[in-house]
This record gives sequence, C-alpha cells and structure tokens, in this order.
Amino acid sequence: MKLFDCQPKKFRGIFVNWRNLLMWGQNMDAELIAVGTEMLLGEIVNTNAAYLARGLSQVGVTSHYQQIVGDNPERLDAAITVAEQRSQMIILMGGLGPTKDDLTKQVLAKHLGLQLVEDAAHRQKLDDLAKQRQKVMTPNNLAQALYPEGAVTLTNHVGLAVGAIVSGEAHQYVLLPGPPREFTVMVDRELLPRLMQGEKQHLVSRTLRFFGLGESALVTAIGDIIDGQDNPTVAPYIKDYEVTLRLTASAVSEAAANTMLDQLQARILAVLAPYYYATGANVTLAQTVVQELIARKISITAAESLTAGLFQATLGSVAGVSAVFPGGFVTYAPTVKHQLVGVNAATIADYGVVSRETACAMAEGARSALGTEMAVSFTGVAGPDSLEGHPAGTVWIGLATATGVRAEEFHLGGHRNEVRIRCVKTALMMLLHELRSN
Amino acid sequence: MKLFDCQPKKFRGIFVNWRNLLMWGQNMDAELIAVGTEMLLGEIVNTNAAYLARGLSQVGVTSHYQQIVGDNPERLDAAITVAEQRSQMIILMGGLGPTKDDLTKQVLAKHLGLQLVEDAAHRQKLDDLAKQRQKVMTPNNLAQALYPEGAVTLTNHVGLAVGAIVSGEAHQYVLLPGPPREFTVMVDRELLPRLMQGEKQHLVSRTLRFFGLGESALVTAIGDIIDGQDNPTVAPYIKDYEVTLRLTASAVSEAAANTMLDQLQARILAVLAPYYYATGANVTLAQTVVQELIARKISITAAESLTAGLFQATLGSVAGVSAVFPGGFVTYAPTVKHQLVGVNAATIADYGVVSRETACAMAEGARSALGTEMAVSFTGVAGPDSLEGHPAGTVWIGLATATGVRAEEFHLGGHRNEVRIRCVKTALMMLLHELRSN
Repeated sequence: MKLFDCQPKKFRGIFVNWRNLLMWGQNMDAELIAVGTEMLLGEIVNTNAAYLARGLSQVGVTSHYQQIVGDNPERLDAAITVAEQRSQMIILMGGLGPTKDDLTKQVLAKHLGLQLVEDAAHRQKLDDLAKQRQKVMTPNNLAQALYPEGAVTLTNHVGLAVGAIVSGEAHQYVLLPGPPREFTVMVDRELLPRLMQGEKQHLVSRTLRFFGLGESALVTAIGDIIDGQDNPTVAPYIKDYEVTLRLTASAVSEAAANTMLDQLQARILAVLAPYYYATGANVTLAQTVVQELIARKISITAAESLTAGLFQATLGSVAGVSAVFPGGFVTYAPTVKHQLVGVNAATIADYGVVSRETACAMAEGARSALGTEMAVSFTGVAGPDSLEGHPAGTVWIGLATATGVRAEEFHLGGHRNEVRIRCVKTALMMLLHELRSN
Repeated sequence: MKLFDCQPKKFRGIFVNWRNLLMWGQNMDAELIAVGTEMLLGEIVNTNAAYLARGLSQVGVTSHYQQIVGDNPERLDAAITVAEQRSQMIILMGGLGPTKDDLTKQVLAKHLGLQLVEDAAHRQKLDDLAKQRQKVMTPNNLAQALYPEGAVTLTNHVGLAVGAIVSGEAHQYVLLPGPPREFTVMVDRELLPRLMQGEKQHLVSRTLRFFGLGESALVTAIGDIIDGQDNPTVAPYIKDYEVTLRLTASAVSEAAANTMLDQLQARILAVLAPYYYATGANVTLAQTVVQELIARKISITAAESLTAGLFQATLGSVAGVSAVFPGGFVTYAPTVKHQLVGVNAATIADYGVVSRETACAMAEGARSALGTEMAVSFTGVAGPDSLEGHPAGTVWIGLATATGVRAEEFHLGGHRNEVRIRCVKTALMMLLHELRSN
C-alpha cells in the first residue's frame, strides 16, 4: 500500500510523514470547504459536506466549521487561511475538474508553495479515454491528473480527477472531487481508511437496513449495544421512512474487521430482526422483495385502492420484475372493486370499503383474475379527509397465497402521500416475511 | 410599514438607520452562516442556504462566502468575527427556537453589546398558544419572542420565533429561523422586500412552470428576453425534470410590480406556451391536470405497461381525484394486455408491443372497460435492456377520447426510472393540451 512505502520527506517546508497523519486521524478537527459558485448562487445544494461529516464522525474526526466559497482564487486562498486559524485538517471539496473554473488544487499548491506533478495512473486513464474517443486531450483535461508534489494521491475510482492528502507541520490538506458520485467513493475507499489510528488501518463499513420502526424506537431497542461502542461504531440515519445503521470497524486486517462486524450484526439482529430487510449501501426494499420473488419463482399481482398503483409502480422500478409480475389492478371506486376483482357489493355494504373483508376479497379476486401465486391488496384512507368514520392513515393490507388469504390493519402517520408510501413499504415487509418464512 | 417609522437611533455604538439599510441592499455582499450541530454531523443538509442564495441574487445582493457552525457560543462568535472581516451583511440561519441549544440571538446580542427585548406580537402568539394548550410557557419558550434592541423585527408567519435585522455602522446582521418552512416564508415575505433599493420597496415574485424542454433549450429560446433584464429578473431552476422560471419585479407598488410581471410573462409565453403548465411556487403538473379534469367533469383511466402504475399513482397523489378516476390497469405482460384491456394477440404479433397500434388498442380497451371519457396508455422500453429492437427510452403514449384514439412516440433519456417518470409527465402534458384545446 503506497501509504506505507513513503518515508518522511520535506518539500519547501512541508513535512510529509504518513505515520503522523495516521495518528492525527483521531482527535483531529477538520474544516470542510466546498468550492463552487453554483452553491453560492443556490443552484445546487452542498450534500457532499453532510456525507463526509457522517464519515468523519465514524473515524473519530470532529468538525466544527464548514465553509462554501465560489470559484475565485483569492477568496478560496483567504478561506484556507481562515480555516488554518481554527482547524487542523482542511478538506477542500470540488474544483478538480477540467474547466477553467476548476482551480482548487492550483490555489492550494500556490498557498503552500508547492509544484503540481502528474500522477501516472490517472494520466494513463486520460490517455486511454482520448484513444477510445479518438480525441486529443487538452491541457485542461490533462490537469485532472496533477496533484501537489509530495502528497499522497487518492485514486478516483469512478472519475478522472485525482484526489490528494497534503501533510504539513501544523495542518493536513485534503483535495476531493465535487461530483457526488466520485466524491462518495473517494471518501469511503480512499480518505476514511487513511484517517484511522495507528496500525488499525483497515476500516470496513456495512449498512443494515430497517423498515417499520422509527429512529428513536430503534436506538432505544439497541441502546445497550450502542452505548459505549467505539469500535465498531454504530451510526443511525433516517431516509425515506426507513432507518439504516452504518456499522464501521477498524482492525489490523479486513478479515478481522469483518469478524467484528459479523458479531455486532448478530447482536443487533437478535433484537431487530422483524424490521431488518437487507444489508447494503444502495439496495432498496423493493429490490429485496423482487429478488426473493424471482429466486423462488413466485408470481405476484395487486389490487390497489388508496395507493392507486404505487405498489405496482414500485415493483416496476426494479429491472427484471417482468419475470414474476404480469400486471394488476387499480380499484379506486367501489364499483371497480366489484367489476375488476369481484368484490361483492354486499361485502362493501356490510363491512365498508375500509375493512378486513374488503381487503381479503380484493386480494383473492386479483389473484384469481390473473392466476398468480400471490396477490396484495390495499384499501384505506390516504386523507386528508376521513372515510366511513376512519381517520386518515387507517389502512388494511391483504395478502392472498395458495394457502389462504389474510389482512392486517395499520394506522400510518403523515400526510396523504406519506401514508401512501408507508403503506407500500409496509406491504413489501409483509411480503418479505411471508416469503422468508417458507 | 414599521420599517419606515423608525428614526435613526444609537444603541451602544450600533447605529440603526433603515434608509441606509435600504440603500445598502444593492451592491452588498452577504455571508450566510448556518447554525446547527446536526449539519456538522451530516444529519441534515443545509438547504436553507441555497434557497436564500437564489433570493439574494434576485435583489442584487451577492454572496461570496457561507459558513456552518455548531450550537456552540464561542465558535459562533468566532465565525461572526471572521464574517465581519470579509462581508458587509451577515445572515445567521437557525438557533432561534426554544431549546437550550438555540443560542444564536443571545450570541449575536452579546457580540454587539445589545440587550434582548420582547416583541409584543410574537409574545401574544406564545400566550395564545399556551392558553389553547392549557400549558404555562417556560422561559425557554418565551425567549422565542426576544430580539436585539433597536432591530427591525421580521414576522414569523408560520412559527413562533421572531426574526430580526440589526443594523450597525459597518455591518448588517440578520437573524432567521432554521426550520425550512418558517425560513422560506420569512425570506420571501420579510427579508427580501426590505433589501430592495430606494423607494422601490415592493418586491413581487411569481414562478412559471414548464415541462418538456431542458434548461439550456429554454434559456436559448428566450435568450433575447432574459438578456439585459434586471427588473424584473428571470431566474431559471431545474428540479424533477421540470424547469421553472422565477420572475421578480420591484416597483413602487405591488400593482405596478404585478403589471411588469404580466407583461414579461406574456412575452415568455408567446415563445414557450407549448411547455407551460401552471404558475405557482408549489403547484404540480399532476394537480394541474386533475383540477382541469374535475373542472370539466371528465373521467379518466389508464392501461400501463412500462410505467406499471406510476401514472395512476401520480393521479392518486392529488386529493379529490376520486371524482374523476375510478381505477385502471397495469398490463405488464402481453397476455394481460389481452385479458384486461382486450388487445388482440394479432396486433401484438403484427406490430409488436412497442407500437402505435398496441398503444391505441390499450387506450381504447381501457376506456371501453371502465366507461370513462378518457384513457391513457403506456407501452415502451424502460430499460436497461432494449425490447423488440427498440432502445431503452422508446415509448408510445396512447390517448383515447370520445372522438377517437391516437398515439405519439417519444424517445426519453435517462435510466430506467427516469424514463418512467418522464413518461408519466409527458402523458400529463398531452392530457393538458387535449383538455385545454377543447
């Protein structure tokens, strides 16, 4: 690993000592400076800073200040000077690309009195691309392979601009690319592992995904596991009505880190298994369910009232779903519940639209109409108004299989479209339990 | 208006002169400081800054720096000092609420040597709320009505914490609440109008919404209208595959500003009418279409293949849609296209699934099955793989009405789910044209 081949060197007053860098990782205070006029104009939101902040907290690096500056060399230089007065590590995000506005590494190099030198691997990538596109790379394009002399380079696994860590006596400077796709990969695979302490240089993370309980309930449920946990760390995060737990272990080897994560995961799932659906940074609940259906060759359909097609559209978001999903029904009006999936008018008259009986009849009717192994049904009150005396958020979800039909009642919170989204995810969890229990 | 009742006063070295403030609005450089540890930890993203930056640019206030600091009095004070060295206006966002972490106005008041005093109107709101909830307000809660003495208060129309503009000799300081719902309203209704120049104190904005052409195409089409335009200003913005134009006029009266906006809007729509669907900051394309359907009492259904229910789910997102939408079909598999909406096997065999003929047959079949006035159909290739030799993004959208059926072919860009979303929006625009042409 290149990091450990380096001996301390001095370049124009900048000491390069990677052992120091490793030990500085802990108890270090980082200032994040995002560079880009488009952020000052409000055209894009600085999501990189939030992503990096979460990562830094996992490796014990605190951050007390962030700045945003435009693509202006003087102001960027001034912002670096401000940061030097209050932070030890200065992380510059953006401005490594090929356009004339991309000046971040030039400004940093000038600030530190360093030359820019070329990284052979990234230069090769640029040459290969030029060959492939039968074009000649301009100097602007080639500048993406440059980094300040003496720096540790950070490989860009999904783009062309090289990143870098420049180590001085009093400060560390980090250069990261701006496009979030490049940024997040470089943070996870290149930067964070290098910020780990001492010999524990192997940092491994995994993300456990849960649906069906809120963040505070989840954190309460595993409070004794999280408390006092500093390696591995456990970081909860909420998005799209789901909670994720990002577990991060540092160890002398990747295998050792994974063993630590396995043990922690087992302790967490002993408590939270009913809410767990998958492990992975990008996997969705819908993907997980569709993969289970495909693996088991189980076909599915649906009859949707309040969700009005959202469940089927969510299945449809997963490539390859056509193998198990022939189509289905949106049965918004009571008459259409009868016409398309055969719900008796008497069932609706006796029990109401929002009832176990109607949900079961819809699921059975849909399954029978298309001849699938499974069918899901949705009936309830999305809101804002109540229906048949039931408040908004009252929902029945039916599930018909070869062995019978059942329905469950839920009381979901939020506005109309939050209720509808929660409703779809709740059904996906029901399906997952049904599939995994067989 | 309170702003003009104030005479210049001096509070402990801070001059308050609102005429100055008005004239400073132009050519002023603002630094935005967001306050909140949750942003440093990456738990929330600082969207307020982007929103305010767009608004400031419309009233001629530039911004070269932004900062984020945590809920820490010393560091916030230090950040204000840094900002004073490089910016004239310092806008503090967040930390006006009732918790012990909310310290922004206390820190600013101490920084400037000012006392905090109570705003009667916001105190009344707190007292009314306490009465309504039959609770006693704690000092923490009451602190939300405090502001630095001598400041202009900014009314919080949707929350309890008062905002303020504090005017010094060399700097302006602005206090704004953190919750985006409160923040955006205070920016638009309270702050921006006060930053206007001279007597043109009435600032009126409106947002025109377009779908079907990209930002660069739109800007090119109306380049001669935008060029050299400084009052009203025209600010394009892209979100969710749509483009909005925010027009902002300043004038001596609201009526005069609206007249200027009417004239500009007419010039823009003379060019862009085919892509325009509504005016408003929050209205959606689906709401616009559903409102037209309800107003004309026209019922609708759909048969969806690649969108798999997304069109119907989008209709279902609008409250009240049940008046015109009884339900519909997801016809993913060819056999289901036949079974549910009567597409002949011969049509599919002769022309393929991705064809004008199949799209027309689906729309006609759906309309006939549920007896609605209109029906929309979707058939095409969401991707990632091609189908029947058609590349991903090839889509046919059918539209059946009482007077006949037609279908149009589109080639939509993006990944699988981008294609599906664009497909739904394209159909909504087709519907809108159909409805408005009758």
